[in-house]
Amino acid sequence: MSLEQYIRDIQGFPQEGILFKDITPLLASPNGREECLNLLLSTLKDKKIDKVVGVESRGFFFAILLADRLNAGFIPVRKPKKLPYDTISASYDLEYGKDTLEIHTDAIKKGDKVLIHDDVLATGGTAKAVCELVERLGGEIVQLNFLMELSFLNGREKLGKEEIFAAMTF
Amino acid sequence: MSLEQYIRDIQGFPQEGILFKDITPLLASPNGREECLNLLLSTLKDKKIDKVVGVESRGFFFAILLADRLNAGFIPVRKPKKLPYDTISASYDLEYGKDTLEIHTDAIKKGDKVLIHDDVLATGGTAKAVCELVERLGGEIVQLNFLMELSFLNGREKLGKEEIFAAMTF
Repeated sequence: MSLEQYIRDIQGFPQEGILFKDITPLLASPNGREECLNLLLSTLKDKKIDKVVGVESRGFFFAILLADRLNAGFIPVRKPKKLPYDTISASYDLEYGKDTLEIHTDAIKKGDKVLIHDDVLATGGTAKAVCELVERLGGEIVQLNFLMELSFLNGREKLGKEEIFAAMTF
Repeated sequence: MSLEQYIRDIQGFPQEGILFKDITPLLASPNGREECLNLLLSTLKDKKIDKVVGVESRGFFFAILLADRLNAGFIPVRKPKKLPYDTISASYDLEYGKDTLEIHTDAIKKGDKVLIHDDVLATGGTAKAVCELVERLGGEIVQLNFLMELSFLNGREKLGKEEIFAAMTF
């Protein structure tokens, strides 16, 4: 079964005109998860990873599985006021307004090799903000990986020189 | 190192008078995670688990790791309007007001053996709502497990006959 078959299209979520890619069938399938995880890991052979950063909240799922397989620390990046300890934050533009993400100040040490994971690469705004957080703490970004890339939104263009991998492309 | 040493006390989060138990040091430690995971798994030997239900959002972390080790499906229970497909919901009382949780209607099949995981057992309100959701879909609850039990809040009393295990007790 191809990975794409574990993704369910939902028309009109979270608002009219959006075709949402539902990953819950993938999460519910041990075989699908394993296949997806192995594909993501296959691009990281020979690469040392100290920390895997997962982005709230659909990025948490595979980020912690990747951390587990890579024997790395798992670091959550969260929406404002969710992390209890000292944080730094980065904001990014949405179609209307702004959104903000936070990371604990002690989450990344200078020189840590960091893998950033989120479920979807869309316009790249979220990913760019996460890169900024990691770099401000002195982390070295080894790769950004995603379950899915929505290539028509050109998210890669917003990101810099970072290595990017997506398990699926739509 | 005992598991408790991976938990950081934060005074006054999310509001004054609360002593918050921060699990991010545990998440950041591959050894801590592994120890915690093995302790949770040790109580599930010989038990068949079809689905592991994780509660938004701090319950997601160890729930998907447990699903991975148990070769089981992972099912998210989420706050309202986060799940894109058809859902059922259950509400529970907070000190002031109510909160609601949702699950996809196709997440659990009749007779599925279900493990429910959340990070903290406090008053038991959340856990009781999750049990209700699982049972309404026909799932059989094998165990509820938690990273931590705040025993002074007597959450176990609110829950029924379900088997309950917590990796740490405060």
